[in-house]
Amino acid sequence: MKLYIKLAIMGFTAATLAFAAAVVFAQDPLPSWNDGPAKQAIVDFIQATTTQGSPKFVPPAERIATFDQDGTLWVEHPIYSQVMYCLERVPAVVKVKPELKDVEPFKTVLFGNREAMAKLSLKDLEKILAATLTGMSVDAFNAEVKKWLETARDPRWKRPYTELTYLPMQEVLKFLRANGYKTYIVTGGGQDFVRVYSEATYGIPSEQVVGTAGATKYGYDQSGKPFLTKEPKLLLNDNNAGKPEGIHLMIGRRPYAAFGNSTGDRQMLEYTKAGDGTRLAMLVLHDDAKREYAYGPAQGLPDTKVGTFTQALYDQAKKQAWMIISMKNDWKRIFAFAQ
Amino acid sequence: MKLYIKLAIMGFTAATLAFAAAVVFAQDPLPSWNDGPAKQAIVDFIQATTTQGSPKFVPPAERIATFDQDGTLWVEHPIYSQVMYCLERVPAVVKVKPELKDVEPFKTVLFGNREAMAKLSLKDLEKILAATLTGMSVDAFNAEVKKWLETARDPRWKRPYTELTYLPMQEVLKFLRANGYKTYIVTGGGQDFVRVYSEATYGIPSEQVVGTAGATKYGYDQSGKPFLTKEPKLLLNDNNAGKPEGIHLMIGRRPYAAFGNSTGDRQMLEYTKAGDGTRLAMLVLHDDAKREYAYGPAQGLPDTKVGTFTQALYDQAKKQAWMIISMKNDWKRIFAFAQ
Repeated sequence: MKLYIKLAIMGFTAATLAFAAAVVFAQDPLPSWNDGPAKQAIVDFIQATTTQGSPKFVPPAERIATFDQDGTLWVEHPIYSQVMYCLERVPAVVKVKPELKDVEPFKTVLFGNREAMAKLSLKDLEKILAATLTGMSVDAFNAEVKKWLETARDPRWKRPYTELTYLPMQEVLKFLRANGYKTYIVTGGGQDFVRVYSEATYGIPSEQVVGTAGATKYGYDQSGKPFLTKEPKLLLNDNNAGKPEGIHLMIGRRPYAAFGNSTGDRQMLEYTKAGDGTRLAMLVLHDDAKREYAYGPAQGLPDTKVGTFTQALYDQAKKQAWMIISMKNDWKRIFAFAQ
Repeated sequence: MKLYIKLAIMGFTAATLAFAAAVVFAQDPLPSWNDGPAKQAIVDFIQATTTQGSPKFVPPAERIATFDQDGTLWVEHPIYSQVMYCLERVPAVVKVKPELKDVEPFKTVLFGNREAMAKLSLKDLEKILAATLTGMSVDAFNAEVKKWLETARDPRWKRPYTELTYLPMQEVLKFLRANGYKTYIVTGGGQDFVRVYSEATYGIPSEQVVGTAGATKYGYDQSGKPFLTKEPKLLLNDNNAGKPEGIHLMIGRRPYAAFGNSTGDRQMLEYTKAGDGTRLAMLVLHDDAKREYAYGPAQGLPDTKVGTFTQALYDQAKKQAWMIISMKNDWKRIFAFAQ
């Protein structure tokens, strides 16, 4: 049955089987994965749900797979890229509104060091997010994010953030799509932010990005041309219970596969697994301090502010047959740029 | 160039051209349309935006077309189908909550005649919508709507509402999809309601239905199984300015083509036409009292409660080069069931 799947990925029809089989059998859809239960679970899931006549066959229209982004598709440590964007946008915001220069938390961001910034409260952070993510047109925002992504660099690898995606997960995205699955990002990050790069970075179009979303307001510029302004009004907080709620709002179907890495993904995985038939729920465990990072209290790893993988989540995963992906053991390679 | 488009629709490859050309040329992608400016505008739009090398070529990922539903894809007169659903659900709601029996507006709906119901205020209607569309699980709601659609009949044609779609518009949906466009419903109606039948009725999957949407709440039943409850909290009023706002929220791209029939679609058409390149904006005018209905003050037709096509909208359409579709003149057939 493995052969069948691999051929389907390559887009071969039955007629070409006789000629292609020998070559295609050598193709592994997940070459950056080590053989093991995690890789096998993905292959088995696709086989069960896409093989005609299988009791677990899923009609193509219902093939939905959802992926958390930060910590699941790309690096989230030591700070979410979008938060970096917001912090780095503060000088531009203060330039337009000089009165903010002496007001907290803007003062700390302007003049403080990294340590002072790390101590900002959630409420302070919300003020910075509101000031840097709203109050401008959708088009202006998209242009700013695009510009930032071109020059911003991750502090450890000195590379654009969009290069810090996990190669094994990129392979899972492609493997699922080659088998008729629609792949969605379901992120606690800003929907508009992620949409700027989702197509180029993950092959995921903007309409398949579900994220934390604010209202927009329709209006007209001086020439009468209509445009949308980003408003400081939250429509969807796409974390925790907000993930299945956001999936219902934006997709209207229950996923057959869901991938996450933290307590914020718990409800999405529960909701996915609660459906009929074969459903796949997987959690990425950051246990590779050498090639990436090691954090999350599960298995005694240090706790951090981002991507909290608690012992309770680990226990629930074991109990409800969610699959844990160990970066250290399951991933042969982590990044496309590093062997 | 027409030949090229028609062949593309039929799914023929270059290799089969020599054999198929004579037959295929006879195939018209819009057989229920009379020749005229409306039909020509659709054909020209698809030709301009999908022909490789055309200065107006649109990459496949950006091919988005949005359709209002009530009055644009199916009959909205004399009352929206969803409002009928809500009125007909009132007895079941009162059965569960008997205290509503003597409370307005439920009393009128239970014991009043059609005339009394027609006089219900918008506020009364909102109470009925809240009572019949929220407070139950998403799954229970979907099952109720499905059951209702199987037995409910339109008062004039005595047919299921889902048979009252306009054949010419079904042809436009298929024509666009055959040329790589993703077709979306963007309706003032309830997103969850329309999703129940959109795939079977229009070939439009649930994730391509944007509508008036309420919040849901994630929770667990007694056995610990998670489910979503429909809450009486409005997230998106997908009418007027809410249409472009909803398009941004759910799709994140500006449409290249948009179809409507009333003032509630004005902003969606404006937003569509304000984009670069070739954009198509069309309005269905209900001017066929014999085969369907004639209403809307434009061109002296009677005003009604539904689908208000005002003179101001008509004037704006003329000024901004939106195309008017005359049901009477442009449509050879209106319904699949009637010649």
